[in-house]
Amino acid sequence: MIEMTANRYGKSRVRLVKVTHNEGYHELYEWMVEVLLEGDYETAHTLGDNSKILPTDTMKNTVYFLARESKATSIEVFAQEMGAFLMGRNPQVSAVHVKIEAVMWKRLTIDGSPHPDSFMRGSNERQITWLRQDRSGTKLRSGLEDLVIMKTAKSGFEDYIVDELTTLKPTADRLFCTALTADWVYSGAIAGGGGVDFNALREEIRETMLESFAGHDSLSVQHTLYAMGETALNKVKAITEVHLLMPNKHCIPVDLSRFGQENPNEIFVPTDEPHGTIEATLRRK
Amino acid sequence: MIEMTANRYGKSRVRLVKVTHNEGYHELYEWMVEVLLEGDYETAHTLGDNSKILPTDTMKNTVYFLARESKATSIEVFAQEMGAFLMGRNPQVSAVHVKIEAVMWKRLTIDGSPHPDSFMRGSNERQITWLRQDRSGTKLRSGLEDLVIMKTAKSGFEDYIVDELTTLKPTADRLFCTALTADWVYSGAIAGGGGVDFNALREEIRETMLESFAGHDSLSVQHTLYAMGETALNKVKAITEVHLLMPNKHCIPVDLSRFGQENPNEIFVPTDEPHGTIEATLRRK
Amino acid sequence: MIEMTANRYGKSRVRLVKVTHNEGYHELYEWMVEVLLEGDYETAHTLGDNSKILPTDTMKNTVYFLARESKATSIEVFAQEMGAFLMGRNPQVSAVHVKIEAVMWKRLTIDGSPHPDSFMRGSNERQITWLRQDRSGTKLRSGLEDLVIMKTAKSGFEDYIVDELTTLKPTADRLFCTALTADWVYSGAIAGGGGVDFNALREEIRETMLESFAGHDSLSVQHTLYAMGETALNKVKAITEVHLLMPNKHCIPVDLSRFGQENPNEIFVPTDEPHGTIEATLRRK
Amino acid sequence: MIEMTANRYGKSRVRLVKVTHNEGYHELYEWMVEVLLEGDYETAHTLGDNSKILPTDTMKNTVYFLARESKATSIEVFAQEMGAFLMGRNPQVSAVHVKIEAVMWKRLTIDGSPHPDSFMRGSNERQITWLRQDRSGTKLRSGLEDLVIMKTAKSGFEDYIVDELTTLKPTADRLFCTALTADWVYSGAIAGGGGVDFNALREEIRETMLESFAGHDSLSVQHTLYAMGETALNKVKAITEVHLLMPNKHCIPVDLSRFGQENPNEIFVPTDEPHGTIEATLRRK
Repeated sequence: MIEMTANRYGKSRVRLVKVTHNEGYHELYEWMVEVLLEGDYETAHTLGDNSKILPTDTMKNTVYFLARESKATSIEVFAQEMGAFLMGRNPQVSAVHVKIEAVMWKRLTIDGSPHPDSFMRGSNERQITWLRQDRSGTKLRSGLEDLVIMKTAKSGFEDYIVDELTTLKPTADRLFCTALTADWVYSGAIAGGGGVDFNALREEIRETMLESFAGHDSLSVQHTLYAMGETALNKVKAITEVHLLMPNKHCIPVDLSRFGQENPNEIFVPTDEPHGTIEATLRRK
Repeated sequence: MIEMTANRYGKSRVRLVKVTHNEGYHELYEWMVEVLLEGDYETAHTLGDNSKILPTDTMKNTVYFLARESKATSIEVFAQEMGAFLMGRNPQVSAVHVKIEAVMWKRLTIDGSPHPDSFMRGSNERQITWLRQDRSGTKLRSGLEDLVIMKTAKSGFEDYIVDELTTLKPTADRLFCTALTADWVYSGAIAGGGGVDFNALREEIRETMLESFAGHDSLSVQHTLYAMGETALNKVKAITEVHLLMPNKHCIPVDLSRFGQENPNEIFVPTDEPHGTIEATLRRK
Repeated sequence: MIEMTANRYGKSRVRLVKVTHNEGYHELYEWMVEVLLEGDYETAHTLGDNSKILPTDTMKNTVYFLARESKATSIEVFAQEMGAFLMGRNPQVSAVHVKIEAVMWKRLTIDGSPHPDSFMRGSNERQITWLRQDRSGTKLRSGLEDLVIMKTAKSGFEDYIVDELTTLKPTADRLFCTALTADWVYSGAIAGGGGVDFNALREEIRETMLESFAGHDSLSVQHTLYAMGETALNKVKAITEVHLLMPNKHCIPVDLSRFGQENPNEIFVPTDEPHGTIEATLRRK
Repeated sequence: MIEMTANRYGKSRVRLVKVTHNEGYHELYEWMVEVLLEGDYETAHTLGDNSKILPTDTMKNTVYFLARESKATSIEVFAQEMGAFLMGRNPQVSAVHVKIEAVMWKRLTIDGSPHPDSFMRGSNERQITWLRQDRSGTKLRSGLEDLVIMKTAKSGFEDYIVDELTTLKPTADRLFCTALTADWVYSGAIAGGGGVDFNALREEIRETMLESFAGHDSLSVQHTLYAMGETALNKVKAITEVHLLMPNKHCIPVDLSRFGQENPNEIFVPTDEPHGTIEATLRRK
């Protein structure tokens, strides 16, 4: 006998640009939305019974319909609105997942002044939120991916296990480059509540982590990752947990002695593969 | 107070080509390995104490060292060897994760005959295995990703919920295109045992799913996904669970009536975004 | 004073799936079309005068309109049809560029038989054609990109220049892996003519190059590239010129002596960067 | 008879990070270099004669060797140094091509101050230079790719050709989004000379183009592209020619009337394909 232990479905990569026309200037938002539903879908799978299936095309339409109605300026609030709307209209649904990624657009500066209606893409860093709403409540996690950062000082790696397969040389001075993924869990009051300035919280968490990264005397990636997570948890009470994933994007010093040169930590080969992978989850007790 | 609730680290994207020189012909394997360790790493994070840290560079070396020793011809057996080796040598480690992806290489056919030592890359489909070994045992999951398939007959989608946000038109005849992700869990006896022909099992599961996809009278993606999973579980007793993820890569019929033409399901626009996302997990009771 | 020395415009990435419903089986084509126009567009640029501008949206519509009318089964013939249609209707146009890429789809084999209406994506290799038609005639070039091939025997690289910056070791036995780009120019009679089986010509050129690659005793990438181009030109009289671009995707033998192992050309690290780049153009005198 | 009408070879994707340790702060450069050689390589191709072949591995070493010696802070000057070094040592070479791409790194701001040794990746915009040096002189072209910009006002597209395949509606107010590619040719005196501040020239050209884009009353992409090129040529005398390529990355207004809503140019679907392609080359007479 076969049983279905989990299932969900929905629409992914629903892209949305929203322009708000304010007096004298425009605001520009570009978001990519994913909506997934869990619910009473046993016969949909076993019999092809679509009577309880809200088409994914309708979910796409819902994104645009709600975007027009919404005053949300953060992905978190728009996710809350999506969740509430879909739960309210679909009794067959037991849980809604909403994921929204924001693309970074920056206002152009022309002749030293911010331009009212011209913009430039920022880096590949993505701001993301994940909302899960079911009949008992709402969970909200936010984060960022692909924030590529490098420190050229205060980083070493020494005193590790050495065995017959070791070829790495210890160093008190190496480049430390990573593409930070970080995500954090908002407390229940924040997740289900209103009137929260999620953009300000996000900015504070991000700045705190960057400051910690830049200032840390790093003995390893683990060491710095922990410091970054600890600082964020200590600083921002609205979050209860933080998860960090930090690939070690190795920059390898070139052996210039073959050409009669010294290399005082100046010339490196940056590499994409292989890379170290370090991750941890920290929680406020 | 902060507590660390999870952590792991290791090396990713360790790429390996292995050529075996047989009498009269070569065999070619290209694998990409990830090794992650869990263990006694509290002070590594809080103090920068590296005394129990096996460098990720050494893990990379281990891949190549073991590849030279190994007779494995499947990614599953090589993952087992990696797990056993690392667990055996590292008492500080509580669990080892090994993920291996195989790149598809096909032997060239020249003048109608298989060539002894020339090969061509196959499709982007990836064969993958995930092993998790801890002090109590081994779990083994295998699968494939990005197997792009299309059926141009026996697929429809009708009788779904219609409301004021519905714009989709029902159809009894549509293209069904997906990029299949499927993964399955091997029973404990298989996962920890020896002498298993994992390549044959993989081939049987894959062929079964493809046959099910091609032959199914599809009333929805969910309907076909379930049929594919059910068939695989029924056919292959070595697996206890299967998970399928099938994006609906929409091919949209072009409205040619604007140009005075009919379009009898002949001309379509294939799209990458937005796409439907359908997933489910099936288990043998 | 400023002069505009060249300009063109059009639509890119117009994707098309065409399904033909034959008695008992379907055929599936997926093409991506680019159409660019040159012509009398001075005031379009200097004054924003759009009176001679055929919108790129209309070019997109033209692709679908013509696809419905067309019986073409090769990208070359469809490119010819696109060129003729646009030149015939647009006196302001002096030249039309059409580029078409075909995505590889293979019919599924189920239970040993070709399935009538289910298909699988092939490799990332792309079949391409470029047509340029102006008021004096038509030029037609076809080719392929990203045909990834590897030979594990009969390849070496020795006796090159050695100086104080040399660190490469000569070898009579190395892996030779490349992602072949090849394109060829059809003679004028073929380019402007009708009734040509371009798929057969393409297949013959491709097979000839693969056979040459597999069989060649390679002293360098240049050496093999030349042999491949020479063979194609000698075999296929319909083409007058061939251009090959062959990155040397290095597979580097792992130094296992550090671990007390030998490496008889068995264990390699495949790398994406840096890579060698070798290209040449050959022509029949 | 076969003749070889062109050939070149070299090394691509040679990645380099250079850190300069100044009093109190570090500078960080990340460049990706390609070096290609033309020369006396007939027998290399026809006979596999490597006696005049400088290995591409040695070219890679040359990049690192010269990077250590160099004081260059611009990709243009380092390209000049590469060209001169290789031409000076290799009499068999008739021409050297050097292409260098710079990755954008920005210094982190911490607590309102620039940090001495921590950096963040900027956007995907790439700064590039192409140098071609032969026995008669040097040509230098620089540019940028993938500068993604959008203007939400002062852009329309009307009064174009309308025929039976037209479905586009004219508009006096649309979003204008592009991923700018621009490259410009330096005059001979600049290309071969010394003491030029190429970073300042690049910045001036880039700022001029952005200002022109932001301020232009755009009647079409062609119209704005021309204005951007014209302004750059008029402003910066060091360049003689500029080429611009501007895909029209369409943002399509969502038809919200189906849901009883108005859409006053507020809600759009951004699309990647199909896209318009507009390009032109302008030259000072």
